Amino acid sequence: MSYQEIIDEVYHDVKDIDDKGKLATYIPELARVSPQKFGIHISTVSRHQHGIGDYEERFSIQSISKVLALTLAYKIKKQDIWKRVGIEPSGTAFNSLVQLEADKGIPRNPFINAGAMVIADILVTHLKNPKKDFIAFVRGLAHNSRVDYNQRVAASEKSVGYRNVALCNFIKSFDNIDNNPATVLDFYFDLCSIEMSCQELSEAFLFLAHDGRTLNGTQILTNAQTKRINALMQTCGFYDESGEFAFKVGLPGKSGVGGGIIAVHPDKYTIAVWSPRLNAKDNSYKRVRVLEKFTVKTETSIF
Amino acid sequence: MSYQEIIDEVYHDVKDIDDKGKLATYIPELARVSPQKFGIHISTVSRHQHGIGDYEERFSIQSISKVLALTLAYKIKKQDIWKRVGIEPSGTAFNSLVQLEADKGIPRNPFINAGAMVIADILVTHLKNPKKDFIAFVRGLAHNSRVDYNQRVAASEKSVGYRNVALCNFIKSFDNIDNNPATVLDFYFDLCSIEMSCQELSEAFLFLAHDGRTLNGTQILTNAQTKRINALMQTCGFYDESGEFAFKVGLPGKSGVGGGIIAVHPDKYTIAVWSPRLNAKDNSYKRVRVLEKFTVKTETSIF
Amino acid sequence: MSYQEIIDEVYHDVKDIDDKGKLATYIPELARVSPQKFGIHISTVSRHQHGIGDYEERFSIQSISKVLALTLAYKIKKQDIWKRVGIEPSGTAFNSLVQLEADKGIPRNPFINAGAMVIADILVTHLKNPKKDFIAFVRGLAHNSRVDYNQRVAASEKSVGYRNVALCNFIKSFDNIDNNPATVLDFYFDLCSIEMSCQELSEAFLFLAHDGRTLNGTQILTNAQTKRINALMQTCGFYDESGEFAFKVGLPGKSGVGGGIIAVHPDKYTIAVWSPRLNAKDNSYKRVRVLEKFTVKTETSIF
Amino acid sequence: MSYQEIIDEVYHDVKDIDDKGKLATYIPELARVSPQKFGIHISTVSRHQHGIGDYEERFSIQSISKVLALTLAYKIKKQDIWKRVGIEPSGTAFNSLVQLEADKGIPRNPFINAGAMVIADILVTHLKNPKKDFIAFVRGLAHNSRVDYNQRVAASEKSVGYRNVALCNFIKSFDNIDNNPATVLDFYFDLCSIEMSCQELSEAFLFLAHDGRTLNGTQILTNAQTKRINALMQTCGFYDESGEFAFKVGLPGKSGVGGGIIAVHPDKYTIAVWSPRLNAKDNSYKRVRVLEKFTVKTETSIF
Repeated sequence: MSYQEIIDEVYHDVKDIDDKGKLATYIPELARVSPQKFGIHISTVSRHQHGIGDYEERFSIQSISKVLALTLAYKIKKQDIWKRVGIEPSGTAFNSLVQLEADKGIPRNPFINAGAMVIADILVTHLKNPKKDFIAFVRGLAHNSRVDYNQRVAASEKSVGYRNVALCNFIKSFDNIDNNPATVLDFYFDLCSIEMSCQELSEAFLFLAHDGRTLNGTQILTNAQTKRINALMQTCGFYDESGEFAFKVGLPGKSGVGGGIIAVHPDKYTIAVWSPRLNAKDNSYKRVRVLEKFTVKTETSIF
Repeated sequence: MSYQEIIDEVYHDVKDIDDKGKLATYIPELARVSPQKFGIHISTVSRHQHGIGDYEERFSIQSISKVLALTLAYKIKKQDIWKRVGIEPSGTAFNSLVQLEADKGIPRNPFINAGAMVIADILVTHLKNPKKDFIAFVRGLAHNSRVDYNQRVAASEKSVGYRNVALCNFIKSFDNIDNNPATVLDFYFDLCSIEMSCQELSEAFLFLAHDGRTLNGTQILTNAQTKRINALMQTCGFYDESGEFAFKVGLPGKSGVGGGIIAVHPDKYTIAVWSPRLNAKDNSYKRVRVLEKFTVKTETSIF
Repeated sequence: MSYQEIIDEVYHDVKDIDDKGKLATYIPELARVSPQKFGIHISTVSRHQHGIGDYEERFSIQSISKVLALTLAYKIKKQDIWKRVGIEPSGTAFNSLVQLEADKGIPRNPFINAGAMVIADILVTHLKNPKKDFIAFVRGLAHNSRVDYNQRVAASEKSVGYRNVALCNFIKSFDNIDNNPATVLDFYFDLCSIEMSCQELSEAFLFLAHDGRTLNGTQILTNAQTKRINALMQTCGFYDESGEFAFKVGLPGKSGVGGGIIAVHPDKYTIAVWSPRLNAKDNSYKRVRVLEKFTVKTETSIF
Repeated sequence: MSYQEIIDEVYHDVKDIDDKGKLATYIPELARVSPQKFGIHISTVSRHQHGIGDYEERFSIQSISKVLALTLAYKIKKQDIWKRVGIEPSGTAFNSLVQLEADKGIPRNPFINAGAMVIADILVTHLKNPKKDFIAFVRGLAHNSRVDYNQRVAASEKSVGYRNVALCNFIKSFDNIDNNPATVLDFYFDLCSIEMSCQELSEAFLFLAHDGRTLNGTQILTNAQTKRINALMQTCGFYDESGEFAFKVGLPGKSGVGGGIIAVHPDKYTIAVWSPRLNAKDNSYKRVRVLEKFTVKTETSIF
């Protein structure tokens, strides 16, 4: 069976599952999305593309942008980045502040909020115009100049983001934020508000399946850096369900509270899924089922 | 280059590295091992075997036995095992008691001490003669009837294991240990005291590279169960360095404080390394270097 | 009004309050006490005694014995005792293990279980026959040679005391228990099982209202040591309700899960109350009401 | 000996102690105070006043203002105040964020920073012009219209107060701050910046020694409310040294990082001491020695 046939089959298998998950409602703006939305898109290193359902419709990529932010910061600071953020799973969300206290303000990894704020701080320091330069970088990866921030979502998140304000100031109290926390937080909320379609996402992440190079040959990261980011997505990409995901899907990836997910099969493909209903741990049931079925049918789990 | 040539080359590259690591001294008996010991052995699903250095000498496999204990308990209890132990990374050791408190006595995964105690409790309940039956299981996997517990090591560990006694009684206070804690701890310390050589270890773990079957066809676990254990070793096998290991080596595996390590490349091979000097996080520098170089030279990282 | 008239009045005011509290049931033996029991006894430094209700009936004094154990250990070790246990309130029970970890095995004060275990360890080291010598000390204070341990209660508590076993071994892992944890725990459970009546309790504690001397002149502690113990009871004597108790009653004191309470008014009197129903925080509603009303009527709060 | 003679004697006993403590330097503006400053003042309910040393010089009262803020908020909200802040000691500073998490944003007591922020929030809600109205209240108590905020100190503290910003936003995330965190923090930093002399402090606190009434008869709080605040100062007034202080001094009180301290002897007097050198736990050695010697010489400890 071809990839197209497989994603068609998986799409129809999963589409009508009675999904009890709920929309993310703590961000008011995200609660307005239709919960029935459902799309899949795959991009391969051999230049094939296959999409089905709402794969061309943009949605809020939320935490998925943390991988892109890490990519750009890693490109700029190289190994030095690991002096300011760790590479280990973080255990429960419950402990995040305790861990920051115990680890003197060094977040456990760049995909928890605390870590992404340190990454945002690095970008604020090193980019001339952080907001403009970062979206240009993402547009380049996605081959689409209309990818953009959604200011209403950023404002919506900012209006209720007290815990994130607490986190950023707490890290600052350990001197692991260089800039003004308010500036870093503004940029952080902007990053989370980026909107992309499944198609654009799978395109943008393809360099991670291609040893750090885009298909037209631009070297984004070195081979070793790429391997590092994939390893990080494998162990830390899904919050409290990284273990579950590693088992069920067996691919490195990253999810976002907007309902999107991206997974990378090194040397083969990237696959993006969108389904906005989330379970209690902020993961979407349908999107995990899609990836699980897809890797079974294609036998491409890494385990 | 053949696997034999590669491990020869890696062995000589790493052998003379000036290794500042120290022996595990908190277990008095382990402090008596020669720190220069160094061995490597690989076993492939295509029935090849290659060893170098002290690969035939037995050492204390310590936490590596947690994978074998999990295997037998999983075979017995199937899915029900996950009601009593989680499958997620645990964050820092620092938080283990806090997490047990927050999670009502359910350890985060079967490879932290708390989790291995729950597994030991399951075996104590379900095996007629736990100590005898378990070693018989391990001997069968290793094709060697002389693999055994080391009673002096078990006694040595028991004599200083106050934190483990605390842990087991704490879990019992949440009703997640069925038997008498003293009985469970005795069996737990026995498990950790098993001695095997690199050759025996790589043999014994080969079913995990072979969809759950031994090379002569005995089905130890189902394919899905095997995938689950490999995913668990990937995300939780190396304590606080799982992220680092996932990046550097890119294979599922498990280390022990006796200096041993086992890594599994699904569908290809298992590789065991022994070097008793440990760094601050209880991992051995040389053994990680061996696996790192080996996967680079064979290009078999999963990322 | 005389003390006798006041306690009579308070007794009748409080007796028929509809008390929704429950018996301590985690210790099976304690669950067999009649919940209606209710007694009050006051002993003054001017040698008056007044009792009402079940003031002559013995009950399990439980944690109240921690004050007597501390007294004897303090007498033996003097200032050195504070190297092994702190003098500060402990915050929530929830954090006790975290605090022990952060404080390297030094319990916050001698009235939390962890601290009382360290005190028990000191007594095991310094008394020739800890069990016999300690009860002799208590009998001397209470002027009654029939005060004794209740072996069924001790055994009952031991049979379910996994969390205490965990605690003691955890402290031992920090080297702040000198003896075998099992020996210390045996003695600890014995201490908690002592049975005394309200009359005996108020007699036994009278030295704390009398600058460290019994009424017949025996110096148990120095004046400064006595002040220290009273200050400790004020700030740490009522677990999570020390603040509430300090406000409502305004006297140093100590409660026990068996329903007893003792309060000390320096230079004036001691008062013991017994009412076995406990609220959610292991304090008894009626006994606190008694003390509150008593101090209001006698205007003897220290604030 | 008269109070005047006793404070003279204590002053000279303590003055030349070689004090190794250091100035609070985390607030830049406070680091500029002369470390030799030393003053004592006592005010009695029988209208006597005695001062010695720098007792007329104003200093930053810092956390001492938390008692005055609590007083005004308590006067306004009465019992309802305890729905939003607890009355129990807080254990170590280390755990403050963990406790807030466990207690759903309800601070343990009104004298830790988290609790004082909730009190500040209440005042912001209920005062027409919080800053102006609060200082008017303090001036009334101190009988001095020139008591004021120090804007440079407030600004100095604000410029480095990231941990406080974190704390306030964290509480807000649990909905226990009603106003904008930035507004509450501004007012909170203002409160801490108030400057008073020992004389003014002991005057202002005299109502707490006088059943809630000023000497000219104005009822600030009810008798019961006054008792509550004194009990709170006793158990929670000195951070991690409340137990030590309760023992050594035996009076309710409150210290501030600016080197000031106030203690209250119900029905007798208030005493204020100022000595800016602080020990490792942010308490001043000399000021505690003064109070210790004073209560010994006057035999007015409550224990």
